[in-house]
Amino acid sequence: MKRFETKLSTEMIAAIGGGKWQGKKELKLSNVCEIHEANDESIIFCEQDKFIESAAKSPAGLIITKPEFVNNFPKRSLLISEKPYLSLMMIIAYWQKQDAGEGVAFVHPTAIVAESAEIAEDVSIGAYSVIGAKVKIAKGVKIGIGCTIDKDCVIGKNTLLYDNVRLYENTQVGANCIFHSGVVLGADGFGFLLIEEIQQKIPQVGNVIIHDNVEIGANSCIDRATLGSTVVGEGTKIDNLVQIGHNCTIGKHSIICAQVGLAGSTIVGDYVYLAGQVGAAGHITIGSKAMVGAQSGLASSVPEGARYFGTPAMNANLGKRIAVAQKYLPEMLKAYRKELKEKKDD
Amino acid sequence: MKRFETKLSTEMIAAIGGGKWQGKKELKLSNVCEIHEANDESIIFCEQDKFIESAAKSPAGLIITKPEFVNNFPKRSLLISEKPYLSLMMIIAYWQKQDAGEGVAFVHPTAIVAESAEIAEDVSIGAYSVIGAKVKIAKGVKIGIGCTIDKDCVIGKNTLLYDNVRLYENTQVGANCIFHSGVVLGADGFGFLLIEEIQQKIPQVGNVIIHDNVEIGANSCIDRATLGSTVVGEGTKIDNLVQIGHNCTIGKHSIICAQVGLAGSTIVGDYVYLAGQVGAAGHITIGSKAMVGAQSGLASSVPEGARYFGTPAMNANLGKRIAVAQKYLPEMLKAYRKELKEKKDD
Amino acid sequence: MKRFETKLSTEMIAAIGGGKWQGKKELKLSNVCEIHEANDESIIFCEQDKFIESAAKSPAGLIITKPEFVNNFPKRSLLISEKPYLSLMMIIAYWQKQDAGEGVAFVHPTAIVAESAEIAEDVSIGAYSVIGAKVKIAKGVKIGIGCTIDKDCVIGKNTLLYDNVRLYENTQVGANCIFHSGVVLGADGFGFLLIEEIQQKIPQVGNVIIHDNVEIGANSCIDRATLGSTVVGEGTKIDNLVQIGHNCTIGKHSIICAQVGLAGSTIVGDYVYLAGQVGAAGHITIGSKAMVGAQSGLASSVPEGARYFGTPAMNANLGKRIAVAQKYLPEMLKAYRKELKEKKDD
Repeated sequence: MKRFETKLSTEMIAAIGGGKWQGKKELKLSNVCEIHEANDESIIFCEQDKFIESAAKSPAGLIITKPEFVNNFPKRSLLISEKPYLSLMMIIAYWQKQDAGEGVAFVHPTAIVAESAEIAEDVSIGAYSVIGAKVKIAKGVKIGIGCTIDKDCVIGKNTLLYDNVRLYENTQVGANCIFHSGVVLGADGFGFLLIEEIQQKIPQVGNVIIHDNVEIGANSCIDRATLGSTVVGEGTKIDNLVQIGHNCTIGKHSIICAQVGLAGSTIVGDYVYLAGQVGAAGHITIGSKAMVGAQSGLASSVPEGARYFGTPAMNANLGKRIAVAQKYLPEMLKAYRKELKEKKDD
Repeated sequence: MKRFETKLSTEMIAAIGGGKWQGKKELKLSNVCEIHEANDESIIFCEQDKFIESAAKSPAGLIITKPEFVNNFPKRSLLISEKPYLSLMMIIAYWQKQDAGEGVAFVHPTAIVAESAEIAEDVSIGAYSVIGAKVKIAKGVKIGIGCTIDKDCVIGKNTLLYDNVRLYENTQVGANCIFHSGVVLGADGFGFLLIEEIQQKIPQVGNVIIHDNVEIGANSCIDRATLGSTVVGEGTKIDNLVQIGHNCTIGKHSIICAQVGLAGSTIVGDYVYLAGQVGAAGHITIGSKAMVGAQSGLASSVPEGARYFGTPAMNANLGKRIAVAQKYLPEMLKAYRKELKEKKDD
Repeated sequence: MKRFETKLSTEMIAAIGGGKWQGKKELKLSNVCEIHEANDESIIFCEQDKFIESAAKSPAGLIITKPEFVNNFPKRSLLISEKPYLSLMMIIAYWQKQDAGEGVAFVHPTAIVAESAEIAEDVSIGAYSVIGAKVKIAKGVKIGIGCTIDKDCVIGKNTLLYDNVRLYENTQVGANCIFHSGVVLGADGFGFLLIEEIQQKIPQVGNVIIHDNVEIGANSCIDRATLGSTVVGEGTKIDNLVQIGHNCTIGKHSIICAQVGLAGSTIVGDYVYLAGQVGAAGHITIGSKAMVGAQSGLASSVPEGARYFGTPAMNANLGKRIAVAQKYLPEMLKAYRKELKEKKDD
């Protein structure tokens, strides 16, 4: 259950959520939750048949539901919407912002900020965070507890860093990004040359560039480029424990699920979807709007808009037909051997 | 080699380890180790034939061994047990507790604790840790260095957080849990809706609930629920670098090995075993006592007690038969093509 | 673009990079970068045909190129080398060291160092780092911000820890190592015994030993041994988000790519190459100079020098032939079934 501190009028809730109100409007609503957790101040939603009964029995103050379900909830306060879930999410998003309020910006006295750093107004910096030389932090940025922003980094407007985020030297971050705890941007790319039986380190002197509206999940890592930049495009969302190798370039509005790993210099287009635990070889291109199934291994490039699956990955339809067909493989082998024996015996 | 500071009498060692003592009892024993590291104050164990010779030659002060091996160690001090390894582990566990002693609870002066937090007696908080508003920490909890416990979190009795653990807002933790360094609980679930060509963030306002006796390995992540809670049941053990998506529910006493990834809303039963790097799709159910082989990809639900393997995962026996049969696939293809050609030529 | 603060003479650049100089020597060179970023103070390299045109058009101050390309760059300052990329990397490595300079060692006043710790000269310790009792840190070591080095750890000469590295109790680290942010060494191995329906923790009292010249990537984890030690040999390089289980022994000069996971007690030889997302079962041996393809699952040991691929992994040639052959499996199944039906109908 998520309780909000700001009071929202039912008029405002209806306006934000969209749809049509039915029932009494003199309600005190203070939280959102799942059906089984609801109390008389709760907003819940009911979009599927299987939840009608429990929603009807719950004491929830407001049920967001769709027109065809209305008759299941007589005498209840309803917000009737074509997309109840979406309506609820819009209400929550609005309410969160209200709760965050003006967000009194505050640099904690234990934060260490280099003299040469340029910190705009309305910037918050949490306890025990350290901001290096010549760092530039734009208006409205919030930096959590125990973060380190190394020298020459730039962070754009209203970006939010949760606790314990590390930006290595010269990382460039856009506006309205969200980085979760444990994110590491700009560690050295993984490059070595075996010279005289020793793995010699290839210096990694490029950087990481993250464009606007990017979200990066907990403990994910994006390595700095050898030369040039490792780039994540606008609006791309990256889940937890993801590895992006040096010199990768990721396009706009792509979705990269948990534990995906991209080797170096791989290019990912726009609106790409990489499901969980996908691995991609280096120096390949994943075309825009491609969708790659979970755990797939991409050894070579993926065409635009393709649906791929498998290790090594292939057209997803073929991949699925193979997945089905392989169940008959032991039987086929037996038949093949029998035939072989018969031929031999002939 | 692990040295202990507390002195344990040989009587106590015998009592804790179980089994029968043989040889002299006036021994000074101060450490446990592998055979090759042993000195005359060491306790070692010997449970397999291949280690008899090295154990016999080692200067170890005490050898824990099984009845049938006794004759290999004449004139040595022995603890004779049906399960030597287990006996040693029980001795170590007891000794560790003695060494930890009363554990003088201590809140480091650099720890920042919100006024509204309720900290019970005998709580330790390490340097540079930050405890947020209205957090409740029960008796005997130990929090390491550089942890952040955000507002409204609850931590049950005697739970141990190593350094650098992050609990986001409203995370609820039971008693006797162990969280290793880099654990992140309660980061936002990974949920977006593509609206007008933009990945719109679905607000994540649920929380994470961890029941008693759960251990979570280094750098593992458990995301908060969208609504409701992501739950880990009593006694479940989670290894390093594991990803648990939002709204998952994991049962009791399950084992989740390193680098496993569970997508959102997946249900895992009790006594489930997920081997390393397993991936599970969202919204599926893994039945109690199911065992899933390493790297398997679970696209659909797994029955109770089943043994599954493969990507997509299937009955492990079939999976293994396919793994064997596929080695003959290139040969079968060759034969198939030959036959095809012959037919065509007919 | 990487700018350096130290000024290097063109003579020095030529000497470090090797090869033959052509063109004017009165140049001011202050940075290295990719071709498209270059300005008149940049050093770039051109080793492939496809980059000749852009390199020729760029304003770069110096082009490192190979003898057969020289005619493409009339009137330009060139460093002519058989291996332009390698020459550039040698220049960068040298320049980085000059920039780091004598590296005025500095223990930040907020660093907390136990009285019993032995800190050699020329050691740097960053803000908010904590050094435990009886830790020994050798000359020239650099410890970043927010690191914790628990009691009885040892760190060898000139080792570099970036921010937020955690060494648990009694971790032993050699000289000239590099650990990136979020590395956790020495967390408990993952060992439990199901006793009376409860997962009982097996105490983990061994440690982690890292030999000289090892690099470990961001957020990687190496667990302490149950007894004895988990060991990483000299010169081995480990990428980001890697999991090394308890009691593993890894040899010298091996390469372990991102998201690899090794279960407990596995032995890895020298000069082994494990590509990204490889998983290895416990208690197996991966022979020296073995190469294992990405995402492979090693269920059993790998011979010395072998090339393996697949899950379960096998000889890479066979693995690739199967990967090709399986594409015909649905067709083969159809034929098989047709034949079966015909036989039945006979």
